[in-house]
Amino acid sequence: MDKLQRNERIGILMKLLTDSPGKIFTLGNFTEIIGSAKSTISEDIDIIQDILDKFDLGMIVSIPGASGGIKFIPSISSEKADFITRNLCEELSQKERILPGGFVYMLDIIYNPVKIENIARIFTRQFYKKDVDYVITVETKGIPLAFATARFLNVPLIIVRHYNEATDGASVNINYVSGSKKKLQTMVLSLKSLKRNSKLLFIDDFMKGGGTAKGIMELAKEFECEVSGIGVLIKTAEPDRKLVDNYFSILTLDTVDEENGIINIRSSR
Amino acid sequence: MDKLQRNERIGILMKLLTDSPGKIFTLGNFTEIIGSAKSTISEDIDIIQDILDKFDLGMIVSIPGASGGIKFIPSISSEKADFITRNLCEELSQKERILPGGFVYMLDIIYNPVKIENIARIFTRQFYKKDVDYVITVETKGIPLAFATARFLNVPLIIVRHYNEATDGASVNINYVSGSKKKLQTMVLSLKSLKRNSKLLFIDDFMKGGGTAKGIMELAKEFECEVSGIGVLIKTAEPDRKLVDNYFSILTLDTVDEENGIINIRSSR
Repeated sequence: MDKLQRNERIGILMKLLTDSPGKIFTLGNFTEIIGSAKSTISEDIDIIQDILDKFDLGMIVSIPGASGGIKFIPSISSEKADFITRNLCEELSQKERILPGGFVYMLDIIYNPVKIENIARIFTRQFYKKDVDYVITVETKGIPLAFATARFLNVPLIIVRHYNEATDGASVNINYVSGSKKKLQTMVLSLKSLKRNSKLLFIDDFMKGGGTAKGIMELAKEFECEVSGIGVLIKTAEPDRKLVDNYFSILTLDTVDEENGIINIRSSR
Repeated sequence: MDKLQRNERIGILMKLLTDSPGKIFTLGNFTEIIGSAKSTISEDIDIIQDILDKFDLGMIVSIPGASGGIKFIPSISSEKADFITRNLCEELSQKERILPGGFVYMLDIIYNPVKIENIARIFTRQFYKKDVDYVITVETKGIPLAFATARFLNVPLIIVRHYNEATDGASVNINYVSGSKKKLQTMVLSLKSLKRNSKLLFIDDFMKGGGTAKGIMELAKEFECEVSGIGVLIKTAEPDRKLVDNYFSILTLDTVDEENGIINIRSSR
């Protein structure tokens, strides 16, 4: 291949880095792909970092040592996180969202790839330093959010299910009590899913009592794994005491007033 | 902001385009963001297209007319699609994957963001010209794949469930017979999920009899929508006649020989 010009190199490096968030590239990897000297590529990377800074689109992190290199982290500034959060509050407080029983309709948000990736950027900002090995969630509504977060952190996704399937192989089943409804439920996870002694990040769309999160912590124990982070899009203000501590929530749902058509939701910060 | 240099412009344009696949940008949008003249940006876009071509990383499509502009489609060449398919075959035919009953363990593949995005690129290549309005799937194992495809096509994801939940609001329930096991199952979809007269792309991980796909077609009718594409990662060779025609599969599972530990799986092409 002909030597690439700087603007072409910047284009391809930007594409490769941001297509594979969290993946470690060595300068040697890039040399193989684009055929330029490491010193040249190193200058290109500095330019990319400047562009990412200028537009608040993430950062390049250097990993020292023999297995070192650089990786792209799609983290964002706290201003941008606040902006995303404000927009979510605005959308989620539309009174048309109120459902019988005081529930809030949000499937159009939590299944929308663009909105989900924005939310996942906030989780990435919060959790990338934890160096987790997996993102874990429970079927079904949190799956898109957990998947997008797993992609940004460059780790596999684990989906805990409520029923066993033949395609899981042998599985670990635990019973847990949902925090809000005091209902006994089952969690099932294939034995092959998780390596022992791994660090897990639990991601979900909603937390009321915290029973699901607590169930995940118990399930993790059965696999000799540790939950090193819990992130939810929305937590309810009541009950104030959840069954788990140390969780991160983006939004807090205070009240849903069915009669007057008012949803009170705000940033958790 | 100071005027950006060409290499900085290429970097930021590449990032914006590939972060939002399928999104239509006008040259005016870019002028607002980076402050350069439209003619300059138009030259930059040509360079980006050349880079994407050279590395087989997608394409820029022009949309003519008043609401026109350009968009990035993460489609790939047939050679690259074949390469991804061959790698999948190799991985999926490892004998350790055989489960009791002749099932194949594949959760590590269908929940892995990097692998899922590669598979979604093949679906994107196949279906982007259909201009669908939604990607639809049935919980649970196909969700990551459907989400990644929806993201690449820039449309919302719709997840059909097996049980109704209060957070769905009013829903449409249909019964369908799974093609392989002749078991009666229920599909539930929130009434608010789909706009009438939409075009749907059904994406799933596995097709045996085709009962789920047929169920989705019936469900679509209840919403006055049309299924304009069906894409599955793996179809089984038997039964040869599925309950639906006109589906696209990437891989064909011929046989699983439990006794001798052999999985026969190949490209469907």
